[in-house]
Amino acid sequence: VIDVPVRLGPRGYRILVGAGVLDRLGPELAALGAGRRVALVADAGLLGLHGPAATKSLEGAGFGVAALEVPAGEEAKRLEVLAGLWEAMLDAGLDRGSTVVALGGGATGDVAGFAAATYMRGIGLVQVPTTLLAQVDASIGGKTAIDLPRGKNLVGAFHQPRLVLTDTALLGTLPERDFRSGLAEVIKHGIVLDAAYFAEVEVLLPALLARDLAALTRVVGGSCRIKAAVVERDAEEAELRAVLNYGHTIGHAIEAVTGFARWTHGEAVALGIAAEARLAERLGVAAPGVAERQEAVLRAAGLPVRGTAAPAEAVVEALGRDKKARDGRLPFVLAPEIGRFRLVSDVPRAAVLETLRALA
Amino acid sequence: VIDVPVRLGPRGYRILVGAGVLDRLGPELAALGAGRRVALVADAGLLGLHGPAATKSLEGAGFGVAALEVPAGEEAKRLEVLAGLWEAMLDAGLDRGSTVVALGGGATGDVAGFAAATYMRGIGLVQVPTTLLAQVDASIGGKTAIDLPRGKNLVGAFHQPRLVLTDTALLGTLPERDFRSGLAEVIKHGIVLDAAYFAEVEVLLPALLARDLAALTRVVGGSCRIKAAVVERDAEEAELRAVLNYGHTIGHAIEAVTGFARWTHGEAVALGIAAEARLAERLGVAAPGVAERQEAVLRAAGLPVRGTAAPAEAVVEALGRDKKARDGRLPFVLAPEIGRFRLVSDVPRAAVLETLRALA
Repeated sequence: VIDVPVRLGPRGYRILVGAGVLDRLGPELAALGAGRRVALVADAGLLGLHGPAATKSLEGAGFGVAALEVPAGEEAKRLEVLAGLWEAMLDAGLDRGSTVVALGGGATGDVAGFAAATYMRGIGLVQVPTTLLAQVDASIGGKTAIDLPRGKNLVGAFHQPRLVLTDTALLGTLPERDFRSGLAEVIKHGIVLDAAYFAEVEVLLPALLARDLAALTRVVGGSCRIKAAVVERDAEEAELRAVLNYGHTIGHAIEAVTGFARWTHGEAVALGIAAEARLAERLGVAAPGVAERQEAVLRAAGLPVRGTAAPAEAVVEALGRDKKARDGRLPFVLAPEIGRFRLVSDVPRAAVLETLRALA
Repeated sequence: VIDVPVRLGPRGYRILVGAGVLDRLGPELAALGAGRRVALVADAGLLGLHGPAATKSLEGAGFGVAALEVPAGEEAKRLEVLAGLWEAMLDAGLDRGSTVVALGGGATGDVAGFAAATYMRGIGLVQVPTTLLAQVDASIGGKTAIDLPRGKNLVGAFHQPRLVLTDTALLGTLPERDFRSGLAEVIKHGIVLDAAYFAEVEVLLPALLARDLAALTRVVGGSCRIKAAVVERDAEEAELRAVLNYGHTIGHAIEAVTGFARWTHGEAVALGIAAEARLAERLGVAAPGVAERQEAVLRAAGLPVRGTAAPAEAVVEALGRDKKARDGRLPFVLAPEIGRFRLVSDVPRAAVLETLRALA
């Protein structure tokens, strides 16, 4: 088990990464002094698969558990689902000392986390991420949100969990496409923050694709360390945390233009990484060859790097609506080389447009 | 102008108290480096009364202002109103650097503050409280919330404002009943935290009731200092901040039992103070006479201290549903003497019941 501390003073917490750590849910939560009531939030499939083990661990440590079902995937992040969670938490008798356990992927963590952030102005939260994407990204750092009809993640809160239990054995049942999508974030961490980690991922990629538990625990643990270090230095995303948006600026715009249907989030991020890598070369920020190394590992992971299925003009227009745009300016995070990043504001519209056209 | 700092590190801010400080809205916000877009949230009446002055000050400092109307009073705190604010903020082009200005009483500040706390995971907030209650209490400390069908303030967030502009001249148009209700919080601050302030309020009460601006600025400024000191020591209401719930534990229960219709919040707090003062004497926490001095100033302020219009049994039952109850235990804040408080947990149900019956 890899134990990754997230040092945020009174809001700090631990990420426990390993095969089988779900069994520690009850004892670890008890050790934190949490109140007796727990809401276990998950979709129907995961409640069936892992609900009994989670409940057994919690009840064994003396907790009373209410299982609250949410829709699978992004459908969970509707306002109506959030309102339903609030009502169900009242029904279950949750008070200010109670805890929400979010068992699932990023969407479940987002809505359950936002419910925990707002119920009685904030109660305890434990993230138990079940997808690779959530394990290396969404479960760490306290970002929670729901969607509005006009866009994703438009309302939410920063609410740090009290504990993250990252059980790599849960990845065994993850569908192949979702698993590969999660690798996009793993690769992203290496590109902008850690060249040695990137090289390790290049080497371990075959073992990861075979879901080897030792390789998974090592790589997921490494990604958690990288993300935790960023979060520690910038808990509320003032500046540094923007580095984690590498590949996401264009990736989000591609998702928006394609109606969040054509690509998984990770696939859109892979396309975004490929585009932003080429953009960096076009702007002279990166030397030739840096983009190709990024694309090679994305391709080896089975991720798309060409053919966005989105008109370049529409993607550029969508970029202007990004919530990171301030007073009209849109910052890009680019990688001058593997393991380093640079914030570049005021990238010319035309350069983005030409880059996207070349990748169409 | 009285300048009260609220020292909360990077979340710290100033409260400016004085007649006419609304005119400083634009320049003060500009000095904070806020982005160009501002949403001015108020009910129709206040938008008509003070919207033009607020807008003029903001536009004069270079801000673009969108006026967003919410229902008057508690009706503003419905989920539908919050969702409407989010949509209107998107319409108005608010981004992460933008600011919400809440112009109004506590309910407007609560819903506008919660909208600011959650829009794009949190944007800037300025409180411009227009009621005495909001000026001495709700506008300070970052508590925001909406109501659910099952109860008040059941969901919300802690979101500190970047500035509080407390214009005592705005109190000139406040209806008499609302004004007197605000005095309940002023008196509360004296009872549990500051005997000298309590004595000053006793002396200045006739001038306050005549809405003398110098007396108002002095007393409101004093209350802001008292509340700021509590908030500084306990930003998220872990323990100390519970002191401000004096009179509110029973007051809230009376409001709930009477359907939030019979009494204003301040009147219910006055009844709660009277009850909790008598409870303290019954329990031997306070000496005889301490309750009478509290009741005398409440009466002089035109506030009720007898006749809750709520059956004692129902009030006691409602106490068990208070969100400050944890695992069934309900703490009371009591005043052993004027200017001091004590947290008492596990107060016998029967003592509360008998106290309420005696005050019926």
